[in-house]
Amino acid sequence: MKKNKQDAHNMLGYPDNSVARLINTDFATIKKDMTIAEAMEHLRQFHKDTEAANVIYVIDDEGRLIDDIPVRRFVLNDPNKKKIEEILDGYCDALNIKDKTETAIDKFKEYDRIVLPVVNDENILLGVITIDDVLDVAEQKDTEDIQKFGGMESLDYPYVKTPIFSLIKKRAGWLIILFLSEMLTTTAMGHFSDELSKAVVLAIFIPLVISSGGNSGSQAATLIIRALALKELTLQRWWYVMRRELFSGFVLGTILGAIGFIRILLWQKLHIFDYGTDWLLLSFTIFLSLIGIIMWGTLSGSMIPIILQKFKLDPATSSAPFVATLVDVTGLIIYFSIAAVLLKGTLLK
Amino acid sequence: MKKNKQDAHNMLGYPDNSVARLINTDFATIKKDMTIAEAMEHLRQFHKDTEAANVIYVIDDEGRLIDDIPVRRFVLNDPNKKKIEEILDGYCDALNIKDKTETAIDKFKEYDRIVLPVVNDENILLGVITIDDVLDVAEQKDTEDIQKFGGMESLDYPYVKTPIFSLIKKRAGWLIILFLSEMLTTTAMGHFSDELSKAVVLAIFIPLVISSGGNSGSQAATLIIRALALKELTLQRWWYVMRRELFSGFVLGTILGAIGFIRILLWQKLHIFDYGTDWLLLSFTIFLSLIGIIMWGTLSGSMIPIILQKFKLDPATSSAPFVATLVDVTGLIIYFSIAAVLLKGTLLK
Repeated sequence: MKKNKQDAHNMLGYPDNSVARLINTDFATIKKDMTIAEAMEHLRQFHKDTEAANVIYVIDDEGRLIDDIPVRRFVLNDPNKKKIEEILDGYCDALNIKDKTETAIDKFKEYDRIVLPVVNDENILLGVITIDDVLDVAEQKDTEDIQKFGGMESLDYPYVKTPIFSLIKKRAGWLIILFLSEMLTTTAMGHFSDELSKAVVLAIFIPLVISSGGNSGSQAATLIIRALALKELTLQRWWYVMRRELFSGFVLGTILGAIGFIRILLWQKLHIFDYGTDWLLLSFTIFLSLIGIIMWGTLSGSMIPIILQKFKLDPATSSAPFVATLVDVTGLIIYFSIAAVLLKGTLLK
Repeated sequence: MKKNKQDAHNMLGYPDNSVARLINTDFATIKKDMTIAEAMEHLRQFHKDTEAANVIYVIDDEGRLIDDIPVRRFVLNDPNKKKIEEILDGYCDALNIKDKTETAIDKFKEYDRIVLPVVNDENILLGVITIDDVLDVAEQKDTEDIQKFGGMESLDYPYVKTPIFSLIKKRAGWLIILFLSEMLTTTAMGHFSDELSKAVVLAIFIPLVISSGGNSGSQAATLIIRALALKELTLQRWWYVMRRELFSGFVLGTILGAIGFIRILLWQKLHIFDYGTDWLLLSFTIFLSLIGIIMWGTLSGSMIPIILQKFKLDPATSSAPFVATLVDVTGLIIYFSIAAVLLKGTLLK
C-alpha cells in the first residue's frame, strides 16, 4: 500500500506502538457557524481533490474537534439554506493520539468507519488515520503472531530483506530455549533407563506417543491464541475452554489410542513385527498413554495462552514448538508411569 | 464489523470464494451529460445520507461503468458551470465479479482505494465493495492460515461458536494423518531395535534430537508460508531460500550441537549421569546428528511450502506439526545412521 499520504512527523514523546506514527495531517476543517455554501467555498479555496476532502472536520476557535461531516452531506442538502451546525449529527468517534495501534484496529471495526480523526487529551484535532493504514498494521500484527507461533522472535523486516545473521539470531534464541527445555526429556528418560533396558520395545513407541501430545496441544494453542487475538474469547471463559478441551482431548485420544492398539494387534498377528509375549499389555499401555497424553496436550495447549494473557504476556508466545516441548517431557512421564503399572511383573519384571 | 450494509443476494453461479458474496448493491449512479447541479439534485432525490453516497458512479444507458467520482469533487467544483464529463478523470479501477476475494485484497492494496466498483465481463456495474469488508476477509484468511499452520482444518465459525463435535472433527482428520505418518518412526525404530538393545543410552536422546529438527523446521516453514502469503517471496527464488536455509540450519545446528556436546561432557564429568566408557563418542554422535537433523529441518520446512505452492496447493497446509512429523522420521534415520558409523565396534559392538 502506498504511503505517500503520510508526512514525516516529529512524533517524539509518543509511545512507539501508538497511532502517532500512522497519523496524516492533511485534513479539512470548517467552523460550525458557516453556511454549507460558505463551507464549500472555503474547501474549494483551501483543499485539493484528495482523499483528505472526503470527511470534513468541524472545529472551534481553539482547534477542538466538534464533529465530523462526510462531504456527501454537503451535496445531499441545499447549500444556501442550511448552516453547518444544522447538518451535524452531534456524534463523532475519534482516536486518541496515545492509543495503541491495536486499539485503533479495534475502534475501526467497532465504529465501522473508513477514516477516524485523532485528538489529544484536550480534544484538539491533530490529524486523521485511514483504514488502509490500519490494514497494514493488522497484517503486520498477524505476521508477528504467526512468526511467534512458529517458535521464533518476529522479524523486523520481510524475510527476503532480513540479513542472514539477523535471521539466525531471531531463530537461535527460542531454539536454544526449546533445546534446553527438551533436555528435560533426556533427564526423564535417564530415570527410566532401567525400564528401557528391560523393555527396549517401549523405546520404539516414544516418538509416536509424545508427538501426538505435541500435535493436539499445537491445535489447541492455535485455536485459543487466535480466538484471544480476535477477542472472540475472554479470559473469564477459561473454565468453558478447559471443559471443551478436556472433552475434545478425551475423544481424540480415544480415536488415536484405538488406532495405535489396532496397529500393534495387526503387526503382531500378521507377523510384521514381534512385540514379545506381552504384546497385548503393551498395546493397552499405548492406548491409555495416548488418551492421557493427548488430554494433557489439549489441556496445556489451551491453558498456557490463557495464563500468559492473564499475566499480560503475549499469548502468541505459547508457540507450537513451545507447547510440543512441554508436552514431550510430561508425555514421557505419563507413558512410563502407565507402563510401570501395566507391565509390572511382565515386561518390567 | 457490522454487516448491515450488505444485502442478501442470489449469487448462485459465482464461485464460493469470489467477491460476489461481499458485494453491496446500494450505490449511486449518474449520467455523464448531467451538470454537477443536476447530478446533485438527482442524488438528493434518490439517495440517503449513507456511505453509498461517498463515491458516485457514472454509467451509460446500458449500465456499463464509465468512471467513478468521489462526491467531494462535486463540492470542490462550481456546480452550475460544469458538466459531469468535465470532472471525470477517465480512470476507474474495478473488480470483476468473478475475482477471488484474495485478488480483491491485493487490488485494494495496489490501487490504494477505500471502495471499488464490481463489474461483470460486459463491464456492467453490479455493485461496490468497501475496504472494511475486505479487512474482514483478510483477517479471516489469516485465521485460516494460522489454524492450518497449527495442524488442523480451518474452522468455519469462531472457536466459541463451533459446536464441540464439529470442533473435534476439524481436528481429528489431521491428527489421524499425522499419527499414521508418525507411525513410520515406530517402523524406523523397529529396524534399529538391535542397536537400541545394545546401547539403551541412545534411546534417551531420541526426543531431544528429533524435536530440534521439528522446531527448526517449524521456524523455517512459518517464515516461508507467511512470506509467500504476503507475496514478499516468489517461487522463482527457491534456490535463494534453499541456500539461506541450509546455511541457517548449519549455524543453528552447530550451536545446538555444541550445547548438546557440553551437556554430556558436564553430566559425565560431574557424575550426574553415567553415559558409559564411550561417552565421548556418544557426544560426537549427538553433535553431528543435531547439525544434520537441524539442516534437514530448515531445508524441508522451507521447501515443502514452496513445493505445495508450485503444485497449486495451499502452502499453509505444511503446518508445524506436519513438518515436525516428517522431520521426526528422517531425524531418527539420520541419528541412527551417524550412531552406526561412529559407535561401530564400541557401543554398538
